[in-house]
Amino acid sequence: MGAHTETFSIRTHGKGTLEITRETAAIVARSGIRNGTVTVFVRHTSASLVIMENADPSARRDLELFFEKLVPENTPWFIHTQEGPDDMPSHIRMALTRTSEVIPVMNGRMTLGTWQGIFLFEHRRPPHHREIAVSVVGE
Amino acid sequence: MGAHTETFSIRTHGKGTLEITRETAAIVARSGIRNGTVTVFVRHTSASLVIMENADPSARRDLELFFEKLVPENTPWFIHTQEGPDDMPSHIRMALTRTSEVIPVMNGRMTLGTWQGIFLFEHRRPPHHREIAVSVVGE
Amino acid sequence: MGAHTETFSIRTHGKGTLEITRETAAIVARSGIRNGTVTVFVRHTSASLVIMENADPSARRDLELFFEKLVPENTPWFIHTQEGPDDMPSHIRMALTRTSEVIPVMNGRMTLGTWQGIFLFEHRRPPHHREIAVSVVGE
Repeated sequence: MGAHTETFSIRTHGKGTLEITRETAAIVARSGIRNGTVTVFVRHTSASLVIMENADPSARRDLELFFEKLVPENTPWFIHTQEGPDDMPSHIRMALTRTSEVIPVMNGRMTLGTWQGIFLFEHRRPPHHREIAVSVVGE
Repeated sequence: MGAHTETFSIRTHGKGTLEITRETAAIVARSGIRNGTVTVFVRHTSASLVIMENADPSARRDLELFFEKLVPENTPWFIHTQEGPDDMPSHIRMALTRTSEVIPVMNGRMTLGTWQGIFLFEHRRPPHHREIAVSVVGE
Repeated sequence: MGAHTETFSIRTHGKGTLEITRETAAIVARSGIRNGTVTVFVRHTSASLVIMENADPSARRDLELFFEKLVPENTPWFIHTQEGPDDMPSHIRMALTRTSEVIPVMNGRMTLGTWQGIFLFEHRRPPHHREIAVSVVGE
């Protein structure tokens, strides 16, 4: 039984989803843990996680546009706008998706389905360095 | 200390919520783990999880209808519609709810509150076989 | 390797967000676990969790107001309204945020980012006692 923790960072290119499945799988492999869970955690409040279809990019385009419309920039009653029109929408879109995602590990591999990828969801307009903490526990 | 992993599948009847608390509790019992966590994970991107009131079904009816209205079928700007009008709404409704849910285990039982049940949330119109991966870790 | 579980309760003051980072950190410290994860779980279906900016309270004010508008009280087609106009909106706002949150633990500390706090999100109008279950697993 054991636990293995690592962090990694990724550079985003402004708003959009970036796949981090490979980075996560590499940490699971390095952990040597065969059965248990892997936890992925974004250390920010203006970026989030989502497990999404990894085959057809059109699904992610529609997802991203949906959030643009559900939580619009320049909503007139937002008061938390010091960092610009994408400031408050970023926090709300983060709260509507996920900060942590936990995936069971069986026989040394994540139990992701065929079409599932793990994506970092950047909500800010400028590129950012984002830190991801990963913890594998099990035996 | 240990880890216990299992998968099970469930047949859905089209859109709606289906309780999987009993199946999850049975896996916790089989694990023999007394203290730790149980992780429930849906291996699909058009179905999700939600922990919801398990007493009055009207709460789930309102929840389901809310998502029908928040992410409508036939949204004119969706481009990811190869599998029909319920294709893209399924992915977005999944992203707005949860792919994984983690419940502490104490004294061999999940710490669900009195009114909490674990539900699979099917977002597609046709019935589907859905696979759930469960991992219990602890001691 | 081990697991440490505790529950604590908090009194809310009606709708709004209440920080529980300190209570969670204290449990991580008491657990003696250096590397692994901490799971925070709300044992209710009308309150939820969100990891949110902990510096400027205006971000939480905008978040709370957004949910008031996204899931309005007195929505005419809600049928689950026995406990009042805040009954069904509470369940939906809970489903749109999180019941569980999992944070990696490294070197005995949670890997929260600089601006991240863990908040209980009370969705009911009256004050409530809310129970939180916490499980730390790792070694």
